[in-house]
Amino acid sequence: MTRIPVWKTITTTLDDDIANGHYRTGDKLPTEAALAVRFGVNRHTVRRALADMADRGIVRSRRGAGVFVETPPADYPIGKRVRFHQNIRATGRLPAKQMLRLETRTCAPSEAKALDLAVGDPVLVYEGLSLSGNAPIAHFLSIFPQTRVPNLAETFATVTSVTEALRRNGIDDYTRRDTRISAELADTVQALHLRVREGAPLLKSVGINVTTDGLPIELGKTWFAADRITLTMAND
Amino acid sequence: MTRIPVWKTITTTLDDDIANGHYRTGDKLPTEAALAVRFGVNRHTVRRALADMADRGIVRSRRGAGVFVETPPADYPIGKRVRFHQNIRATGRLPAKQMLRLETRTCAPSEAKALDLAVGDPVLVYEGLSLSGNAPIAHFLSIFPQTRVPNLAETFATVTSVTEALRRNGIDDYTRRDTRISAELADTVQALHLRVREGAPLLKSVGINVTTDGLPIELGKTWFAADRITLTMAND
Repeated sequence: MTRIPVWKTITTTLDDDIANGHYRTGDKLPTEAALAVRFGVNRHTVRRALADMADRGIVRSRRGAGVFVETPPADYPIGKRVRFHQNIRATGRLPAKQMLRLETRTCAPSEAKALDLAVGDPVLVYEGLSLSGNAPIAHFLSIFPQTRVPNLAETFATVTSVTEALRRNGIDDYTRRDTRISAELADTVQALHLRVREGAPLLKSVGINVTTDGLPIELGKTWFAADRITLTMAND
Repeated sequence: MTRIPVWKTITTTLDDDIANGHYRTGDKLPTEAALAVRFGVNRHTVRRALADMADRGIVRSRRGAGVFVETPPADYPIGKRVRFHQNIRATGRLPAKQMLRLETRTCAPSEAKALDLAVGDPVLVYEGLSLSGNAPIAHFLSIFPQTRVPNLAETFATVTSVTEALRRNGIDDYTRRDTRISAELADTVQALHLRVREGAPLLKSVGINVTTDGLPIELGKTWFAADRITLTMAND
């Protein structure tokens, strides 16, 4: 008779705990130390068990945060109006943004082209993290033409939503003109920001939003953690 | 005085060769053996130089094929009509498909849901590689409802284009109902098929095409090599 390795009996028990709803989707599992005590093994054995569960997509380890019961990626519609807060609320979670940087500088050639500006025109750079229910789901970098919304920087001192900030600056509506989507691997900084491992897959979207007059108002680059977000498009 | 490492003088020379158009975008560089002879060094040193150039995005190594001067990713529009041959021709390259598998089987629950079938209904599975100018750009898996196009398998014996095959089976037009986009890392088999390294980023698209009557006619899953393709969407 082949003996069942200890780590395998641990995964079987934890699999059952999850199947029985003791730990639910999105829940954090007890720490390695706590699991080692519970099963009377060393942390190395616990780690082996959790690694197997991660391989099977049952749990996911988030750097510096712990091990969580896997959540299927949330849908994030990329349509004529792309609205972060609205998209996250539709998944039943609370949207939030964490600002990393807000600065005015001159625009680079690629930004000038995208925003229909002259090279060297001033732009406002808003960099941050998008959160869904406290979990970071994306790292974003938004570029706004300073001359078209001169007071936007002040607005971002109290408002994190781009839609709301633009509204307060006289832009009541804006639409997505085009979106470009690629895939990249998380670098060290992105891995720390998004709590994924280095080399984890990211969905990168580069979108241009325009006013109802067709004037570019935002060049938005977003790196979504691919295990948390699926971009969706529907043609009606 | 710090001595410049030999591999660095090789990268400088090759950088110049590329900048001067001696090797152009998409060109294959000489083999490691040939470069070792040219520079009078061993292949290890050549490899070190090429690795540095790959890190800087100047060249890309394709497994089993050689080292190529980097080509920027081609745009691949995901709109109301997604047509592979048309999309590739628009980039100025020749489209082709290589069939890996063609088989009829019963459909799984997720396929039944996507195609509006009953679980167990027969589907035709068409798996293959999409090529652009001889370079593989995507691995695809298309599922067709057998009862709606009963002779499709026979058509694929002589026709590789889905659009053309459907046309010969009475479907003159079809449109994309929705598309879901995620990012994944290439596994061993995909890496071999797409000539990327294991763990390279892939853009995965899952699309449902419907007839003009709104009847699902194809569930298509495609894994694009992210360094060769950017998915694009425009709102008019």
